[in-house]
Amino acid sequence: MDHRARLEALSRALDKERLDYLLVSHLSNIRYLCGFTGSAALLLVNTNGATLFTDGRYIAQAKEEVSGARVVIDHKPILMAVGEWLRNRRKARRSLVLGVEAEHMTVGAYKKVADVLRGKARLKQAPPLVEQARMVKDAAEIASLRRAVLLGASLFDVALETIRPGIPETEIAAAMEFKARQSGAEAMSFETIIASGPRSALPHGRASKAPISADGFVVCDFGVILGGYCSDMTRTVYVGRPGNKARGFYNAVREAQQAALEATRPGTPVSEVDRAARKVLKNAGLGRYFTHSTGHGVGIEIHESPRVAAGQEDVLKPGMVITIEPGAYVPGKRGARIEDMVVVTERGVDVLTPTAKELICI
Amino acid sequence: MDHRARLEALSRALDKERLDYLLVSHLSNIRYLCGFTGSAALLLVNTNGATLFTDGRYIAQAKEEVSGARVVIDHKPILMAVGEWLRNRRKARRSLVLGVEAEHMTVGAYKKVADVLRGKARLKQAPPLVEQARMVKDAAEIASLRRAVLLGASLFDVALETIRPGIPETEIAAAMEFKARQSGAEAMSFETIIASGPRSALPHGRASKAPISADGFVVCDFGVILGGYCSDMTRTVYVGRPGNKARGFYNAVREAQQAALEATRPGTPVSEVDRAARKVLKNAGLGRYFTHSTGHGVGIEIHESPRVAAGQEDVLKPGMVITIEPGAYVPGKRGARIEDMVVVTERGVDVLTPTAKELICI
Repeated sequence: MDHRARLEALSRALDKERLDYLLVSHLSNIRYLCGFTGSAALLLVNTNGATLFTDGRYIAQAKEEVSGARVVIDHKPILMAVGEWLRNRRKARRSLVLGVEAEHMTVGAYKKVADVLRGKARLKQAPPLVEQARMVKDAAEIASLRRAVLLGASLFDVALETIRPGIPETEIAAAMEFKARQSGAEAMSFETIIASGPRSALPHGRASKAPISADGFVVCDFGVILGGYCSDMTRTVYVGRPGNKARGFYNAVREAQQAALEATRPGTPVSEVDRAARKVLKNAGLGRYFTHSTGHGVGIEIHESPRVAAGQEDVLKPGMVITIEPGAYVPGKRGARIEDMVVVTERGVDVLTPTAKELICI
Repeated sequence: MDHRARLEALSRALDKERLDYLLVSHLSNIRYLCGFTGSAALLLVNTNGATLFTDGRYIAQAKEEVSGARVVIDHKPILMAVGEWLRNRRKARRSLVLGVEAEHMTVGAYKKVADVLRGKARLKQAPPLVEQARMVKDAAEIASLRRAVLLGASLFDVALETIRPGIPETEIAAAMEFKARQSGAEAMSFETIIASGPRSALPHGRASKAPISADGFVVCDFGVILGGYCSDMTRTVYVGRPGNKARGFYNAVREAQQAALEATRPGTPVSEVDRAARKVLKNAGLGRYFTHSTGHGVGIEIHESPRVAAGQEDVLKPGMVITIEPGAYVPGKRGARIEDMVVVTERGVDVLTPTAKELICI
């Protein structure tokens, strides 16, 4: 990953925002900017370069992972270390302007930094500069995401082999997660959802001890982290013989997903993509059962900008990687969701998830 | 879990702090107070009761999980929903004082709430009231933690069966994690650490593709989440035949761990426990290789208060559950750590982790 290029782009953004420094506290942003994956760090960026502050546990790891930034190991609490380091950088003419990540820094931390820097620097809530940069993936990131998506998709085969009436949902999740780890995944990107029968109507039905129902949908929503990047996909299968109602229900979700995919291209507002899916479900009489948004960005984090939802103002650009995942949920009865990961290209969209979407009956 | 009792205790604490409401934003605190496990929620607590705000994805789940609190589902962003709800609660005589969790609420969220409530409420950074309550576990929590610890400890047998020279570290982790899931764990409580040979000197050496070294320590640090509660344990084994140096090194860590266990009793400052471990390693000439603190609280989260470290002022009380985990790490050469989970009792300490600590050679 080209950390130097990312840090340089950020330092240009700082200039525009008239910030002397940005204090990056969100760990995913730190990873994106300099490669560090430890659990405790702050990254201070200015036009002269970047400095990573971490603690004694991470001496060796920081040396191994970090590129593009200096590393400072301190025995003080990291926030204090940054404050003191900045306080010692005297600028004769004026006090410094230090940007902080408004959506990540807590009010408690803000107060501590402000106290240490009183009279030396003015704190300012910066816009989400790193998140904005992260929305558009570079070539190395798209390659990483493709690898994660392919590994993730291979787990669906495990699901198909293990889903049988009476088997606990967690057992299916366990088999998928074992395969993921054996195949090199660092972890799952979120708690695996295996939701069978009436539980399929829970949009976030994490695998439970409930046995797979002998007749009904099973929503399988899962993903891996591979090389630091997340995958995310959903397929819904049917155990037993679906009647016309269930088939019609599934097909409406599938058509909604297809409509959203077709609306996905550079220059289109994300709200249009959401609307395309919602319109199909509304026409099928299922509008009120589609209770979440159509998708979200994916990358180092499982949920990133943009949100693909009504009222959101982001416009799709080449290099954005998002999910397209409409669903419908009739409480106590049935639910279905179909989700692909896609990358917006110069001309349209490239669906990364390779898995078929015909209704599979088990 | 007795959510009503927890909410009542919190409302008494609010009274003392002269807060009309506390806005709980930390999801683990929300789970502790009312049982909700979804990924998006805010809980508003006052002396008249508690109200959980969440979104459309969680209608069914909130109904199933929440006790002791009303549930409000809103299609607005949750922060706005809370703000408007509060704005509509007029109090004739004075403006409300709304406490926020200073260590969890972001400066961005703080500003949004403050804007919505301008003229109606005054925001105040509250001390960590819920974390303070959570430090001392009740009987139901200790029972849950015992179950998690026992399941966690059973994974060490899997490690002993799979650790062999040449096997990738991740394969050992995968086998342990599969067993955890099959045994009912919701997830691992953190990324499994299997760190072999020179990697044993990385205090946070997450399992990598590196093969198990034919001669050296293997640090195994792992835990599960079961019933919402975390386990955490570390054992260090030796692959090959340890020389006197390696044996002495291991024994020093083991004695340090024993000394810290012996220092753990009600009324003792946590800093004393840390000092007990540090003293042993210092006397063995390994003081500068013990680069982290001696332990931490464990419960709904893998890292909770108190931190068992120098300079910390918390005093041990019956019902606190902490880890005792000194280690030593000689960069590029060897590392060892031994970690138990313990509960502070009326008279001393009860070691929850059942696993022996003699050096096992494979």
